[in-house]
Amino acid sequence: MIEEHIKQIEQKLGVNKVLIGEKVKERYEHIWEMDKPLCAKAVVFPSTTQDVSDILTICHKYHQPIVVHGGLTNLTGSTETNADELVICMEKMNVIEELDLSSRTITVQSGVVLETIHQEVEKENLLFPMSFGAQGSAQIGGVIATNAGGLRVFRYGMTRNLILGLEVVLADGTIISSLKKIIKDNSGYDLKQLFIGSEGTLGVITKAILRLQQKPKSRNSAFVAMNDFENVVSFLKFIDEGLAGTLSGYELLWERNFKAMTNPSTNISKPLSYGYKYYVLIESLGSNHEQDQQRLESLLEEALMAKLILDAALAQSVQHTELFWRIREDVDILVSQCNNVQNFDVSLPVSEIGTYVDTVFNILNKIPEIDNFFAHGHVADGNIHFLISKSNNSTELIDKINNIIYTPLTGLGGSVSAEHGIGIHKKPYLKFCRSNEEIKLMQSLKTALDSRGILNRDKILNHQ
Amino acid sequence: MIEEHIKQIEQKLGVNKVLIGEKVKERYEHIWEMDKPLCAKAVVFPSTTQDVSDILTICHKYHQPIVVHGGLTNLTGSTETNADELVICMEKMNVIEELDLSSRTITVQSGVVLETIHQEVEKENLLFPMSFGAQGSAQIGGVIATNAGGLRVFRYGMTRNLILGLEVVLADGTIISSLKKIIKDNSGYDLKQLFIGSEGTLGVITKAILRLQQKPKSRNSAFVAMNDFENVVSFLKFIDEGLAGTLSGYELLWERNFKAMTNPSTNISKPLSYGYKYYVLIESLGSNHEQDQQRLESLLEEALMAKLILDAALAQSVQHTELFWRIREDVDILVSQCNNVQNFDVSLPVSEIGTYVDTVFNILNKIPEIDNFFAHGHVADGNIHFLISKSNNSTELIDKINNIIYTPLTGLGGSVSAEHGIGIHKKPYLKFCRSNEEIKLMQSLKTALDSRGILNRDKILNHQ
Repeated sequence: MIEEHIKQIEQKLGVNKVLIGEKVKERYEHIWEMDKPLCAKAVVFPSTTQDVSDILTICHKYHQPIVVHGGLTNLTGSTETNADELVICMEKMNVIEELDLSSRTITVQSGVVLETIHQEVEKENLLFPMSFGAQGSAQIGGVIATNAGGLRVFRYGMTRNLILGLEVVLADGTIISSLKKIIKDNSGYDLKQLFIGSEGTLGVITKAILRLQQKPKSRNSAFVAMNDFENVVSFLKFIDEGLAGTLSGYELLWERNFKAMTNPSTNISKPLSYGYKYYVLIESLGSNHEQDQQRLESLLEEALMAKLILDAALAQSVQHTELFWRIREDVDILVSQCNNVQNFDVSLPVSEIGTYVDTVFNILNKIPEIDNFFAHGHVADGNIHFLISKSNNSTELIDKINNIIYTPLTGLGGSVSAEHGIGIHKKPYLKFCRSNEEIKLMQSLKTALDSRGILNRDKILNHQ
Repeated sequence: MIEEHIKQIEQKLGVNKVLIGEKVKERYEHIWEMDKPLCAKAVVFPSTTQDVSDILTICHKYHQPIVVHGGLTNLTGSTETNADELVICMEKMNVIEELDLSSRTITVQSGVVLETIHQEVEKENLLFPMSFGAQGSAQIGGVIATNAGGLRVFRYGMTRNLILGLEVVLADGTIISSLKKIIKDNSGYDLKQLFIGSEGTLGVITKAILRLQQKPKSRNSAFVAMNDFENVVSFLKFIDEGLAGTLSGYELLWERNFKAMTNPSTNISKPLSYGYKYYVLIESLGSNHEQDQQRLESLLEEALMAKLILDAALAQSVQHTELFWRIREDVDILVSQCNNVQNFDVSLPVSEIGTYVDTVFNILNKIPEIDNFFAHGHVADGNIHFLISKSNNSTELIDKINNIIYTPLTGLGGSVSAEHGIGIHKKPYLKFCRSNEEIKLMQSLKTALDSRGILNRDKILNHQ
C-alpha cells in the first residue's frame, strides 16, 4: 500500500522520479561510509526547484520528515535516515546554469559535484577556492549546508565567504530565491546566512551563485620545523606579513604524523630530518613563480637566522610540491595505520593549541586500549584534526575518548566541530561549546522556519 | 510623573545612568546630521552587559520600544526616535577588554569608536581593515549592526567577515554570549550572522571579538584611465591576477567626479589628463615597497601595451598616495558643489555597471531640477555611490530620483543598499530588490526574536 502523500508526490513529479520499498534497498545497497543498505520510506529525485517545492508542500501537509541526500560524504551522520523518512536525492539537479566571466561567478544547481565546478572554472583561468578530500563526490548543496572548510580557509574563508546568492525551499514549500551576483548587499536581513551551515535543518538548498577568484599563476611550498609552539605562532605572523596576501596554507603536523607519513612503507621521502616537535607546511599562491620563490626563500633564511624556525625545505619542482602536500593530505596513509579509527575536527584559539594537544596526548598515552594517535591541522585557522586508533569500538571507549578531546574545549573557548558539523554523532557534545541560551535560540529559529520539524529531523537539535 | 518602568530602570541602574524629559533635549540639542533636538522618553546609559539585559527585561515586560544609539553616523534613519521611545546610549560601554597578540584578536565593548580600535591595534603592528569616512565617530556596535563596508571590502570583506565572536542581548533580556576567538566553528547555527547587518532590530550588540590582520608594510597606489567599461572589468581581472592577493582597492570615478575633485578650486592637481570616460584608483597592500612598486609598474606597462588602459600614473611618494586617495575619498568636496544633496549606495553585478550608469546619467540630464550629479564607487565590489544636486527637497523630486536610481536594479539583480542599510528612508524601496517571500521570512525572524517588536521598531520592516 502506497501512502496517500507518496502517491501525490508521484502524481506531481511523475513515477520515474520516485523510488519506493524494495527498490530503495536495491539501488542503495552500497553507500560510502554506510555499512548497511539505505533505510527510507521512499527516495525522490527532483530535477527542478519547483519539484522540490512540490515535494515539501506535500510533506509539510502530511508531517512527513525528509532527509536531503547530496554526495553523502558527511562525517557526522547528517544524512542518516530511518524507515519513516523520505529521502530527497539531489543528483538530477546537476546543471551548471551560468559561468559569468565578467562578474566572476558561477550559478549552479545544488546537485553539482564540487570537482565538476573546479574543472569548469579552471578552463577559464578562474578558481573556486573550496577544496577538500571528498570533492570528487561532495555536491555543492552539501558543501554549503555544512559550511565546509578545507585547505585554503586562511586566505579565502569558509564556504560562507564564497557564496553570493542562494535559492532555498522552506519546509512549507516556499521558494526563497536570493540569487544575486553582488558582493555587497545590506538590503535587510542576509537570509542566506541562516541556511549556510545549518545542515539541511532550515531549508533545502536548490541553487547557488558562487564567487570565483583569478587562478593563481604560481604555487610555492615549504616545510619548516620548530620545537616550541610559541614559534609556530610567531612564525605564522612573520610569514603572513612577509608574504602579504599570498599566504594560503599553514598546516601543522606533530612529529608522530610527519614520521608516519614518511616512513619507508609509504614511499614518501622526508623533506626534513626527524627529531623536531612540530613540522609546518606553508603555501603561497602568487603570480610569478620565480619572484615568489625568491621572496619565500629570503623569508625562510631570515626566520632561520632569528631562530623562529630550526630547519626549512623549499619545494623545488611541481613533483616536490605534490609530495609535500601528500604528507599533509593523504590521510588514508594514517588511517591504514589505525584500527577502529575515531576522528575529530576541533577548533580553539591558536595560542592554546600547543598546551591543549600536549595534554590530550599525555592522557591518550595512558589508555591501554589506544594503540596509536595522530594530530594535524589547519593551525592558522585554529583547527586541529585527531585520528585515534583503538582496540575496539565499544560505546564506552568512544565516549571516553570524546570526553578527553572535548572537555578542555569548554574552558578554552573552543568548538567541538570546526568543519564537519554536529549531525547526530556530536549532538551530545554541542553543550560543550554552546550555552543553553544559544541552543534555545537555535531551537526558536528551527521552530520559526520549520514548525513541524520535517527537515532533517533530530540533526543538530532534538526534535521537539 | 515618571512612568513605572522608567522608575524600575532607574532603580536597577542608578539615577546617574538615566536621563528624562527636558534633560534629554538639553543634552542632545546638537546631533550630527539631525536638525532638531533628540525626541525620546528617556535616554539610558548602560555600562555593562547586565545593565543592557536589565533594561531590556523591563522594556520587554512593559512593551517599551527602544532605539540603540552608537556614533549616530547612520545615513538611513536607523537611529531616529520618537517621543514614545527609549534610547539606549552605548557610550559608557567603551572598554577595550583584551588585545590578544597570539590569536590576533581584539575584544571590545560595543561603544568603542572604530578609530580607537585602529589606533590600539596599530601600536602592535596589526590592522583592523574596516575603514570608512565616519570612523572617528562610528562605534563598533553600529559598524557590526549595519555590516559596514568601506574601502577594503574587495580584499578583506565586509564587517561580517571580520567578526569572530559576538555578545548580544535579545529583546527579552536574554544574553547570548558567543564570544569565541576561533575562525572556524560549525557547532550548530552561526547565530552571530543573524545580528550582523540587522540594524538593531533583532538584538542589542554588547561585545565583539574582531579578527585582526598583520599591518601591511607597503602601500602602492596608481590612477589609470580608460574609455570602455569592458576594460574596467578586464583590467580588474588582469591586475587582480598580477597583484596576487595584494590588491586591496579598485575604485572607479566617472570623469565628472575626477574633474570636480581636481579643478583649480580644490587645490588637488590632477594625476592624469582629462578626456577619458573612466578613472580607476588601485591600491596594493604588500610587504616590500620597492618590489611591490616594480611589480605594479611592470603590470601597468603591460596593460598599456595591451590597450587595457589608456594612461596611468603611479604614486611616487606618501604625499602623492594621500593626494590620490583624497580624489576618491574627500567626498566633502563633491558635497560642497551640490545643493540639497541626495545620495545612494546601490550595488549590481560588475558587468552591468557601465550601461546602468550611462542610462541613469541620461535620464538625470533631462530633469531641469537636477543641476549636478556624481558617481563613484567600489567597482570591484559592484558598489556605486551617486551624489545628486538639485534645486529643492520636495518629496516628489526625492521620490522621482529614487525611482530613477532604484527601478533598473530589479531587473539587473542589484540592491538598493550595498552598505548603508534600509533604516527608515529606504523602506519603501526594499521590495525593489527583495521578493515578497524574502520579506515575509524577515518578518518571521523578527517575530521569533522580538515578539513585541520593541527593538528599533519600524526600521527595515513595518511593525506588525
